[in-house]
Amino acid sequence: MVATIIASEVIKKKRDGGRLSPVEITEFIKAYTEGTLPDYQMSALLMAIFLRGMDEPETLALTSAMLHSGTVLDFKEIPVAKVDKHSTGGVGDKTSLILGPIVASCGLAVPMISGRGLGHTGGTLDKLESIPGFNVNLSLSEFKSAVKKHHIAFIGQTKEICPADKKIYALRDVTGTVESLPLICASIMSKKLAEGIDALVLDVKFGTGAFMKNKSDAEKLALGLCSIARGYGKKVSALLTNMDQPLGNASGNSLEIEECLEILKGGASAPDTRELSLQLAAKMLVLGGAASDATSAYKKCSEALSSGRAYEKFEELCQIHGGHLKELPRPKFHLEIKAKENGYIQSFDTEKIGMVGVRIKAGRAVTTDVIEPTAGIITHSKIGGKVQRGDVLYSLHGANLDLLKMSEAELAATIKLSDTPVTAPDLIWKEI
Amino acid sequence: MVATIIASEVIKKKRDGGRLSPVEITEFIKAYTEGTLPDYQMSALLMAIFLRGMDEPETLALTSAMLHSGTVLDFKEIPVAKVDKHSTGGVGDKTSLILGPIVASCGLAVPMISGRGLGHTGGTLDKLESIPGFNVNLSLSEFKSAVKKHHIAFIGQTKEICPADKKIYALRDVTGTVESLPLICASIMSKKLAEGIDALVLDVKFGTGAFMKNKSDAEKLALGLCSIARGYGKKVSALLTNMDQPLGNASGNSLEIEECLEILKGGASAPDTRELSLQLAAKMLVLGGAASDATSAYKKCSEALSSGRAYEKFEELCQIHGGHLKELPRPKFHLEIKAKENGYIQSFDTEKIGMVGVRIKAGRAVTTDVIEPTAGIITHSKIGGKVQRGDVLYSLHGANLDLLKMSEAELAATIKLSDTPVTAPDLIWKEI
Repeated sequence: MVATIIASEVIKKKRDGGRLSPVEITEFIKAYTEGTLPDYQMSALLMAIFLRGMDEPETLALTSAMLHSGTVLDFKEIPVAKVDKHSTGGVGDKTSLILGPIVASCGLAVPMISGRGLGHTGGTLDKLESIPGFNVNLSLSEFKSAVKKHHIAFIGQTKEICPADKKIYALRDVTGTVESLPLICASIMSKKLAEGIDALVLDVKFGTGAFMKNKSDAEKLALGLCSIARGYGKKVSALLTNMDQPLGNASGNSLEIEECLEILKGGASAPDTRELSLQLAAKMLVLGGAASDATSAYKKCSEALSSGRAYEKFEELCQIHGGHLKELPRPKFHLEIKAKENGYIQSFDTEKIGMVGVRIKAGRAVTTDVIEPTAGIITHSKIGGKVQRGDVLYSLHGANLDLLKMSEAELAATIKLSDTPVTAPDLIWKEI
Repeated sequence: MVATIIASEVIKKKRDGGRLSPVEITEFIKAYTEGTLPDYQMSALLMAIFLRGMDEPETLALTSAMLHSGTVLDFKEIPVAKVDKHSTGGVGDKTSLILGPIVASCGLAVPMISGRGLGHTGGTLDKLESIPGFNVNLSLSEFKSAVKKHHIAFIGQTKEICPADKKIYALRDVTGTVESLPLICASIMSKKLAEGIDALVLDVKFGTGAFMKNKSDAEKLALGLCSIARGYGKKVSALLTNMDQPLGNASGNSLEIEECLEILKGGASAPDTRELSLQLAAKMLVLGGAASDATSAYKKCSEALSSGRAYEKFEELCQIHGGHLKELPRPKFHLEIKAKENGYIQSFDTEKIGMVGVRIKAGRAVTTDVIEPTAGIITHSKIGGKVQRGDVLYSLHGANLDLLKMSEAELAATIKLSDTPVTAPDLIWKEI
């Protein structure tokens, strides 16, 4: 009864553009998570927040309430800095699998709580699970031991971590309250802060394959996320990166693992994936105190690749999780999509490429969909690339030829050619 | 599943300031009333409507959807015009009990679906039920027969009428979405339109005892309500009336019945109650075609009082509902609150007077409270009135002396005196 009275007053205050106090936010979230405050009051508040906004102290308090709704990991016993990277999601975005081993091999700890693919964006856990035997379902104590011993491990969001976020996110999804900056920031940061990290590097993407289609929205998001991290005394920096085309060549789980292995072994057939991974890893080294400046950090990271140390760390990671790298499956079938005319690649509908991925079972339309690990798309040329009639633009891979055939036309329509030369976009637009 | 997808799209559209189509509104309300659309989606939409508003066609569609969620009465077989009055609520507002018999005795039909008291405002049904034996719980068919035969009958909102409104109102109450003009208009008008009336007179109140504290908000509400009525092809007019003090002398159920009986018998000890009842009744006669102009309508209504025809109609009404007027209970106790100094009455905190009424059980704090029919307050002098030390300002009446004593100080604090003469406010500010 008392909770109900507080709840409707809190809703009215936000509705009228007021600023909620930390106590109001904390009690509201606590009651909702415990189930004493009903969904319909939470959704009314979410809509009021969506339309009225939240300032920095409110967003911090919301993050804090969500963070403390569950377990917050504590890695104090590990003497080195704990650093992580978070990406806002895209197509072919596999940098975690490269920068994680690089940074861990350079002496810092990387405790990664990762997600699964949904809609057009992929998920790190799905990629790892394409390695036969790879088990991402460690318990929190197994995860902690692994990070302590090997400086790297991966895990999914367990029910102990940020239960408030899980419950609120499900409600936002059906009440038109997803695209709200303070709600997005609190959701992302509560999960990252639960990792017990000292520093965080953000990869905030913009473009046709990102959630934020334009630079300005992406910058706002980056600033919001950085401000929360700083409010918690965490070191943070953000790169604003281009997602107007898939990152690297491969999108699809085992195909992306192959691309990562090639880079970890010193290869360079996907220079954008390699470069972005190195840039993000270098940032992590600087924030974690393992390098004094950007130049020496970048050099250290490059050496981790060329020396094979990062690859060894990846093999070590597979051992921790029981993955058998040598058994990585190969797609049974592939289809090629060829250019019908000469020209320069002008643009990609990258989100649509991701949705073709969903159709061929490289991704999920709903959380219960089952992924086919070898399904995926290789993008053979990038924006600005010159193509001639008959050149292969895409290849579709997977175990189900019918699905690949069904998606051919849709995928072909995601690329636009120009008669005149096109300038390739910068991979990294800005640094915060 | 389909309903859910539509629901979140409808929510997003309103959230982004879009105009909802009649189909979107109708389907949303239908699914909610049927229980296939959950509370949390309805409350998100209500908050979006609260903050983004609704234009006239949307408000009409919402009214229509709520109206058609239940039974719409049909009085076509009654050859005369069916007219009603709706008041937005106040303290001591008893005009329905006077104008109903007046208008019915002038040949028009008055099918009144009335409400109960809640918070500081009273309810017509509670007033009638203070008459021993008076049964307001007629079935819809009994109600129709009574209106057909006697041209007047009273009934409460049954579960057959506007079930959507009932469900939505309960949700608005706990989600901070009550004070929204389109939601208020649709709620009021769907219930009135369900009465199957041809014409409606609105008594929209402003002041310290009204929901709308200022004239401008009251006028907006009046315009909104009139526009819906006209959209349905109903004749409508509205009076904007002053509620800066209780209407008449009595507030409290049996006390108000006594005041009405005195007026119906031709008395004039509560001139404001008498005048407002006559003005509203005259409007009803004009809209219903029983008088050609305002002057002749007013004359007809006055004659209905002076001739005793209105009183006879009230006695007939009591017979229909089984009420025994002669057994009207009298309060056992009364306490007087006297002026402690000379002066002129400057203002009343009328809402507070209503809340003292709730405390002495003349009204309800929550819908389940039980009313004590004889409890009430007599206001002995009005704004502008000259009082001398020792004059009685209020008297508190009821069956429970302790309750009356407990409320004495609170009631005394609701009146403010001035040293210099004060002008009495106009009873009727404006006509629409």
